Amino acid sequence: MDIARRAGVSKGAVSMALNGLPGVSEATRSRILEVARELDWHPNNAARALSAARSDAIGLVLARPARTLGVEPFFFQLISGLQAELSGRRIALLLQVVADHEAEIAVYRQWWSERRVDAVLLIDLRVEDTRVTLLEELGLPALVIGGPGHHGRLPSVWADDARAMTQIVDHLAGLGHRRIARVAGLPDLLHTERRTEAFRAAAAARGLDEPRIVWTDYSGEQGAAATRGLLGSPQPPTAIVYDNDVMAVAGVAVATELGVPVPAALSVVAWDDSPLCQLLHPPLTALTRDTFAFGATAARSLLAVLDGGEGADMEDHVPVLVHRESTSAPPP
Amino acid sequence: MDIARRAGVSKGAVSMALNGLPGVSEATRSRILEVARELDWHPNNAARALSAARSDAIGLVLARPARTLGVEPFFFQLISGLQAELSGRRIALLLQVVADHEAEIAVYRQWWSERRVDAVLLIDLRVEDTRVTLLEELGLPALVIGGPGHHGRLPSVWADDARAMTQIVDHLAGLGHRRIARVAGLPDLLHTERRTEAFRAAAAARGLDEPRIVWTDYSGEQGAAATRGLLGSPQPPTAIVYDNDVMAVAGVAVATELGVPVPAALSVVAWDDSPLCQLLHPPLTALTRDTFAFGATAARSLLAVLDGGEGADMEDHVPVLVHRESTSAPPP
Repeated sequence: MDIARRAGVSKGAVSMALNGLPGVSEATRSRILEVARELDWHPNNAARALSAARSDAIGLVLARPARTLGVEPFFFQLISGLQAELSGRRIALLLQVVADHEAEIAVYRQWWSERRVDAVLLIDLRVEDTRVTLLEELGLPALVIGGPGHHGRLPSVWADDARAMTQIVDHLAGLGHRRIARVAGLPDLLHTERRTEAFRAAAAARGLDEPRIVWTDYSGEQGAAATRGLLGSPQPPTAIVYDNDVMAVAGVAVATELGVPVPAALSVVAWDDSPLCQLLHPPLTALTRDTFAFGATAARSLLAVLDGGEGADMEDHVPVLVHRESTSAPPP
Repeated sequence: MDIARRAGVSKGAVSMALNGLPGVSEATRSRILEVARELDWHPNNAARALSAARSDAIGLVLARPARTLGVEPFFFQLISGLQAELSGRRIALLLQVVADHEAEIAVYRQWWSERRVDAVLLIDLRVEDTRVTLLEELGLPALVIGGPGHHGRLPSVWADDARAMTQIVDHLAGLGHRRIARVAGLPDLLHTERRTEAFRAAAAARGLDEPRIVWTDYSGEQGAAATRGLLGSPQPPTAIVYDNDVMAVAGVAVATELGVPVPAALSVVAWDDSPLCQLLHPPLTALTRDTFAFGATAARSLLAVLDGGEGADMEDHVPVLVHRESTSAPPP
């Protein structure tokens, strides 16, 4: 073994030191651990089973740029809700930000082989998602946030995005709008795709014009740019639905700047409600969901899995559209 | 050993199973792990040294109600900034919400004895803080967010709250205000105490009236109640400084409701800037700091400690007061 050679001790001494057994001096033990650290030594899977009885941690890997997380209240309300349930059982949350799904999968493999987590939460499900198959193969207990469908045999907790979107289109069509546009989130996310399908289907059912959709990365910058593009087009929409609150607020700012008053000339709907939506002038019509409660629900479902249950699929409440002052009849 | 008796096997078999060594059948091994799990068995400290070479996790314990975290952008911008630096080294963040400092200390003891983390971040420092002494005793590497002072031999990263507060008082005094009040955060936090001292000293230096201070839990509800109390008093203040953005926004809403126009009859300053401050009507004069960058700075300092360094104390940039439309001269 490399560690023994480098530290100038016997293999037996290394084994005793790494296993925390008596028989080596504190100085030797320190030296061995130091060498092990230098070699970036990882205990193998079998040895890690030592700690496998319980890790008391749930894993959450976020494959999004770290900078965008601070402005997305969704994740942290979700995490707060999760911790509200998990902390009572003294279960911690192991959080890791990665660049992409490939890196995410590597983290799952490592965490599970080292039994760092008892289970993981899978978020931002894609239409074709290799992570689901991998987790099933590994046997790493997991709960999918966002369903139904496309989550294999893994249990899932979700809200009905399609019904929520239909509510929004019905509200706007009821006010008399016929040209509705949508500023959407990342196109390869399953929930974006679900909302898109529901958006088109609801518009068609109401006999509205074929709706335009612009995809973004959820940032205020891209929300503003999308709004500018839509309002500058030959036949601008009379209503825009935004996939989050940050983009809706940026959209209102752009409309105001362009001399397009909200709601007189443009109605605006935000998917996620927030203090920002409520305190803006005008306050925004927004889709309200209790993400904290959703996180707590997910935690309970996950605890059931940890306690040996099957993990039932669960549908959370459908988000509710709160009518405020950013939506009205379109200009005549 | 209880596990051996319960599983009906020898102690040797238990040891082999828990240490992942050959010599027991897979079925026996499963049974032993199952029993260990039922008994909520934790490996002892010495055995945990097996994984001590590196845990690749930083611990963060939050002794605040989980529900309030989702509305406090500070923590999550801090976490985003931390992860931006740590994820490049594949270091995860182990997050745990607890009820109080006693529970927090118990978590540190457990994490360190089991080598779950390589280091921890200590936040919300108190004037008298037993956690500092404990971490020094344990030898658990730690970085204190918030200094200088009161952090023993532990390295600390901080921003100069006193100078920031002096900026605010100078701005208001310069506009002609003489009755300034403050809606503060939790009274036993060190940074609340620092701001209070600086607030009183700056007011005295400018020859202002003895300023009134109301302490709260940072929530919008308590911010609103404090504002109602101040504005309903015989000699209401002409300016209020709030310790976070959520309370400042709630304060503006209360003032508007009471027929006290902002800024004509009441100037308002928010400690933390946010999209909420910028997009509110009127936009709020606010103290801007880049919490994401602060988190990244803290992470770099922590990595230096992990790499065997001493961990230098570091002062971050002083937050900057951005003048917007919520502050003006007091009514004549």
